[in-house]
Amino acid sequence: MRAVDLIRKKRDSKEHSREEVDFLISGYTRGEIPDYQMAAWLMAAWIRGLSGAEIASLTEAMLHSGEVITFPELPAKKVDKHSTGGVGDKTSLILAPIVASGGLNVPMISGRGLGHTGGTLDKLEAIPGFSTALTLVEFRRVLRECGMALIGQTAEIAPADKKIYALRDVTSTVENVGLICASIMSKKMAEGIDALVLDVKTGSGAFMQKEEDSVCLAELMVETARRMGKKAVALITDMDQPLGRFAGHSHEVIESIEVLKNRGAADLRDLSLGLSAWMFYLGERTKSVEEGRALAEKLVASGEALAKFKHGIALQDGDPRVIDDYAILPQARNRLKIQSRADGFLAATNCLEFGVALAMLGGGREKKEDQIDPGVGLEFHKRVGDRVTAGETLVTIYYNSDLKLLEAQQRIEQAYAFSEHSVAPKKLIRRLIGAEALP
Amino acid sequence: MRAVDLIRKKRDSKEHSREEVDFLISGYTRGEIPDYQMAAWLMAAWIRGLSGAEIASLTEAMLHSGEVITFPELPAKKVDKHSTGGVGDKTSLILAPIVASGGLNVPMISGRGLGHTGGTLDKLEAIPGFSTALTLVEFRRVLRECGMALIGQTAEIAPADKKIYALRDVTSTVENVGLICASIMSKKMAEGIDALVLDVKTGSGAFMQKEEDSVCLAELMVETARRMGKKAVALITDMDQPLGRFAGHSHEVIESIEVLKNRGAADLRDLSLGLSAWMFYLGERTKSVEEGRALAEKLVASGEALAKFKHGIALQDGDPRVIDDYAILPQARNRLKIQSRADGFLAATNCLEFGVALAMLGGGREKKEDQIDPGVGLEFHKRVGDRVTAGETLVTIYYNSDLKLLEAQQRIEQAYAFSEHSVAPKKLIRRLIGAEALP
Repeated sequence: MRAVDLIRKKRDSKEHSREEVDFLISGYTRGEIPDYQMAAWLMAAWIRGLSGAEIASLTEAMLHSGEVITFPELPAKKVDKHSTGGVGDKTSLILAPIVASGGLNVPMISGRGLGHTGGTLDKLEAIPGFSTALTLVEFRRVLRECGMALIGQTAEIAPADKKIYALRDVTSTVENVGLICASIMSKKMAEGIDALVLDVKTGSGAFMQKEEDSVCLAELMVETARRMGKKAVALITDMDQPLGRFAGHSHEVIESIEVLKNRGAADLRDLSLGLSAWMFYLGERTKSVEEGRALAEKLVASGEALAKFKHGIALQDGDPRVIDDYAILPQARNRLKIQSRADGFLAATNCLEFGVALAMLGGGREKKEDQIDPGVGLEFHKRVGDRVTAGETLVTIYYNSDLKLLEAQQRIEQAYAFSEHSVAPKKLIRRLIGAEALP
Repeated sequence: MRAVDLIRKKRDSKEHSREEVDFLISGYTRGEIPDYQMAAWLMAAWIRGLSGAEIASLTEAMLHSGEVITFPELPAKKVDKHSTGGVGDKTSLILAPIVASGGLNVPMISGRGLGHTGGTLDKLEAIPGFSTALTLVEFRRVLRECGMALIGQTAEIAPADKKIYALRDVTSTVENVGLICASIMSKKMAEGIDALVLDVKTGSGAFMQKEEDSVCLAELMVETARRMGKKAVALITDMDQPLGRFAGHSHEVIESIEVLKNRGAADLRDLSLGLSAWMFYLGERTKSVEEGRALAEKLVASGEALAKFKHGIALQDGDPRVIDDYAILPQARNRLKIQSRADGFLAATNCLEFGVALAMLGGGREKKEDQIDPGVGLEFHKRVGDRVTAGETLVTIYYNSDLKLLEAQQRIEQAYAFSEHSVAPKKLIRRLIGAEALP
């Protein structure tokens, strides 16, 4: 087998066998296939597309390029959630303690924020002392002790994905559902999970702005998980406006704790409970999704989920006093209220702009190397459908540097569209993918 | 400007500006754009295609990556011919001396054989002492002294093409008319010529087997030459059977000298005179192609073209006695006659197989590093349309090693198809491209 022939095959829209995909990925990981050949193949795959079988082969090959964790010592099912990312999406911080307090294991390997989206690791690291850079041995120990562990991708997990992702980033081969699916799933399958709930965002603040693209990716991911013997469903959820009331690292930690205290924003609470419900059901903790929902609500109401979060924070060297004292989180020194100039009903927001504005103020990364300022944040006072009077506050900006404040402010102001007529609130969970095919 | 954005642009089927193409090619040549980004761009360009304007930009950018020769000291027009290659195609050895003896300059930068096709440089090097590795200073001197010079691509000529071609070879991005056109034309335009005659082969022994593909490439090359201010026409010529009676390096030198002695195979003579005629016309040596043809015939009949070849050989350190003593050329020790098993009319040959068989016997390269045995050859006794009786010789194989003789013999035998009914001879010059648009 020769790489040049496999490049030709994909260039000519032919389908690879499992052996061919293995040859490519293992050869590339070992450095036997050079970057330029992989780059040519990636572009051919980007343009010509990959079949479901090819995506499954690719996922498996990338998965087996590194360590695949198993937890024979943990009898309860292992479940996880993956979100494609958005603005204000902090459900991981809420559902991990809910599901762990319900008796399942949540071995969660997460990512960092890039561009306009936030990352779970960055949010957790707003908590003083919190370490996400655990070794696999420490990961296993934390999981055993409290049923949840939240870490970043280690060198042992899917090294092929790490290498390929870096190459895709510089060869304009990122935005392809097949390659995205294999990248996500190879990491998730390495966690040793039994089931996976996918939260695929759609709308102006999501990577996939069109619902049909989100559905396509969701179907591929569910199919890939199934081909690999894992249970999976995907929720297509709204990202045409931020999730919850806050975006920004410290603020999102606080908002997550608020939900665990049985308070907080209704949409964030609803989605977190909904995702938890599916995790309980797929993890066979409950006999139905409805029962899963009831269990999740009970664990929040009783404080068990909150206590689990506190325990998890302590085990990962974070300061558990954060649960009761938000002041230990980094805070921005200044605030600026952005008021509506219009009267009317909030018709739509360009959610991407909020993420970009936040990043500009230091609350996100434009480049991988950028440092994040966790105290910076945005508070959203209005949701689509709300009646707004001129002069009412739309957004509060929490900031430290006014270097790019004006530009951020303008972006935020221009992200709002109003209507004279009443507007229906956005439906949060738009579609459910894969539920009908569950065993 | 960033390479990653230009890759995305081509990936998304958008057209590059001249500045963008310049940025890519000059950045790659200087090593600022890495191989993997160029590989991704090449695959995108291969699949999405390049416009005429993009091909012209690419050609110019590759041309100007190196030295562009000019000959202010030579008042006569500079003309050249380029062939896309085939089996037995040795017209360069014939038309260069014809055209030079007619008073034009032929500064010819040629290539080596690869795969099933022969290369002009390799053929010339069958002549003892002949050097094709001249410096540009020597090239200029030989051209000044005898009006013709035949050399290989130097490091100064179109280094971008050299680098890109090597990358295309290992990333399955070779067979694309736009990239092929730019590669050929960037080298040809560096020769400082006023006009170019293109011989685009079509048929079973050509790189482009379908006539419409050959026409497409021919049109692109003619258009590119015109965009760059050069006169050009293209002849689409038959490569469904070998050109002339012989393939193999020493044999092709002999056959070329035979044509210059006003003898030799009719088809080879006809095409060589036809191409020379166009060179005379485009080089403004004659007022019409017909007049050019008459001049070419006269120069052959008078022995002037033969004398020019002898002079040219001597100037490039070759042994000029070859003109009168073919025995100084390397010869194969053994011969084997392949006889027809069938009676009938020769209907078709799979001309590719002859080239592959010749390479197997050492008369060609399978890899770039392979050494060529110039004495090895094939003699073709029958042409399409000929009546053949069982037992008549189809091919004589001249060989040294019988290591792969049987396999070569089988390939040759299987390359012939016979018909019970009479078959029309193949038309050698199938189409003429670009003549109508000449000034």
